[in-house]
Amino acid sequence: MKPTHIEHIGIAVANLEEAIPFYEKVLGLECYAIEEVADQKVKTAFFKVGQTKIELLEPTSPDSTIAKFIEKNGGGMHHMAFAVEDVQTALNDAAAAGCQLIDKAPRGGAEGLRIGFLHPKTTCRVLTELCGTK
Amino acid sequence: MKPTHIEHIGIAVANLEEAIPFYEKVLGLECYAIEEVADQKVKTAFFKVGQTKIELLEPTSPDSTIAKFIEKNGGGMHHMAFAVEDVQTALNDAAAAGCQLIDKAPRGGAEGLRIGFLHPKTTCRVLTELCGTK
Repeated sequence: MKPTHIEHIGIAVANLEEAIPFYEKVLGLECYAIEEVADQKVKTAFFKVGQTKIELLEPTSPDSTIAKFIEKNGGGMHHMAFAVEDVQTALNDAAAAGCQLIDKAPRGGAEGLRIGFLHPKTTCRVLTELCGTK
Repeated sequence: MKPTHIEHIGIAVANLEEAIPFYEKVLGLECYAIEEVADQKVKTAFFKVGQTKIELLEPTSPDSTIAKFIEKNGGGMHHMAFAVEDVQTALNDAAAAGCQLIDKAPRGGAEGLRIGFLHPKTTCRVLTELCGTK
């Protein structure tokens, strides 16, 4: 596997309307999209800084994984996503190198990308996403 | 403030020797430097992916803030650093926009850069670093 860059950093927030002003007014970044991802039970807000997006994640249901993360940790950095060319190949490479996969095959993520997650047990406790167009 | 990119992501690990193989063998990144930052009581390992560095942080003393973070959370993503041109100006901008500062003036960080931290209370619970050459 050879990721080209960090595609995004996922940050769990209790409330997008309260979090967006920090990124806009303090860091001077522009919120260019707000999107609901129904199957992950989150509403997302996107910012871009250099090659990397910041993806704020607000839970839309108390049983979303993001709601549980916020309940446990109060919020904060939730996952790190690497841009790869082919997500299935990257997942296969990770499994062959001894990683535990959350997704054995890519699924649909925000912004129409294909995504797959590696289990934090085998990634130094960082929930790691692989993200690409195919 | 207008950061140009994410300069690095700081990740707390209990042991660099156990963590480095994930980044090298699974993600295919190269560890290009290992450096001790005495005043932060950490040993760091650096990788580069696109514009962004991954900075693994191993505590060198039980009273380092990284040791306390690992004790509480087991490790994982610790801070996010934005590249800015002038750290003092960026800190002043953040304070003027209502942020609580950990550092009122820049101090020396790894790789000879000037750094300053914003308090996570006012940054949506993400320990946020501003990082630059001056």
